[in-house]
Amino acid sequence: MRGTFVVFEGGDGVGKSTQAGLLAAWLAARGREVVRTFEPGDGEVNARIRAILLSPATAGLGPKAEALLFAADRAQHVHELIRPALDRGAVVVCDRYVDSTLAYQGAGRVLDAASVAQINAWATGGLVPDLTVLLDLDPVAALASARRAGEHDRIEAAGTEFHARVRQGFLGLAAAAPERYLVLPAREPVAALHEAIRSRVATLLDERADAPGRLIP
Amino acid sequence: MRGTFVVFEGGDGVGKSTQAGLLAAWLAARGREVVRTFEPGDGEVNARIRAILLSPATAGLGPKAEALLFAADRAQHVHELIRPALDRGAVVVCDRYVDSTLAYQGAGRVLDAASVAQINAWATGGLVPDLTVLLDLDPVAALASARRAGEHDRIEAAGTEFHARVRQGFLGLAAAAPERYLVLPAREPVAALHEAIRSRVATLLDERADAPGRLIP
Repeated sequence: MRGTFVVFEGGDGVGKSTQAGLLAAWLAARGREVVRTFEPGDGEVNARIRAILLSPATAGLGPKAEALLFAADRAQHVHELIRPALDRGAVVVCDRYVDSTLAYQGAGRVLDAASVAQINAWATGGLVPDLTVLLDLDPVAALASARRAGEHDRIEAAGTEFHARVRQGFLGLAAAAPERYLVLPAREPVAALHEAIRSRVATLLDERADAPGRLIP
Repeated sequence: MRGTFVVFEGGDGVGKSTQAGLLAAWLAARGREVVRTFEPGDGEVNARIRAILLSPATAGLGPKAEALLFAADRAQHVHELIRPALDRGAVVVCDRYVDSTLAYQGAGRVLDAASVAQINAWATGGLVPDLTVLLDLDPVAALASARRAGEHDRIEAAGTEFHARVRQGFLGLAAAAPERYLVLPAREPVAALHEAIRSRVATLLDERADAPGRLIP
């Protein structure tokens, strides 16, 4: 595998796709082949799996069948798009990957996290990102701002507890392998975040270029 | 779980559905609630998963995504139909289950069998049949008959090697847990096979009726 795999993680609305887009544009301007993608994926198989996951006709979907469908979606995404791109030396920039499953699964606590992690590791052939950019946002602080703005209601409060657990899930995964993560406060200005991400990715690409057997990017 | 789970396994065309139908009719005549089913399942979710597995539009489906879709199908079948039926005390009679995946997977040798077995054990919550009836047929002998009848060709010969490996897979699973299997030669007359199956199932139901905490069937 000659390419580089960069993943953006974090809750909804933290700016993952904005930052992924900026990074991809910067890399392309440097002359790198960039493959910009996201999960759940948008290939033919992925679209059909997503239709099952979202259809009201399949409301009786059990939690294990659901987790296995997500794993099938990811296996196909890696098989069809991510792995071939990395094999030809591209930089793959992806919104969400295994960490999203683990963080949301852990917060939901319906299934045993160790088994879900094991199945996802098998599904991806053990493909781990070279760098995961975690855009971290405290949902309680976000809620407090919303409350000051008069947008708070009970449903938001219940959601906040869930999202606080999701956030802890992401931070826990980052803490377990700090060398593979860049954790940034999502509320920083877009340009400042992009600068920090660009700097870390540049270092990563230089390191990989210097590694034995690698091509200079 | 108060019910009894009986599975029919074996290659294509060995008479699984004929024998499953005869057994179900006999049990119903004895006043038992019988749920007759098969895999891949025919619920709403199952039909959509099967459509992905069979669609020519999804010819790029990778082997891991395929195995995970089969496992999702099975998880849903157990969740939606088999487990609830067993919980209310029914006898579930099913054509094909985990052994089919393991036997065909082992014969195809695309993926590591241990991982596939582990994922299926998780998908089913460890639900193992009380009895698996294996209708065993030697594909080489079947081919020899076909050859004498002038129906042999090269394609059939290649297929026979694959089916010989599938057969060995089934026999290996039966040999590893003989107390949970009834292996019968599939070419015996239908009535003789039914008699042997009926006798073994009657013994099984009597044993389970005598077990502590069980209802008399």
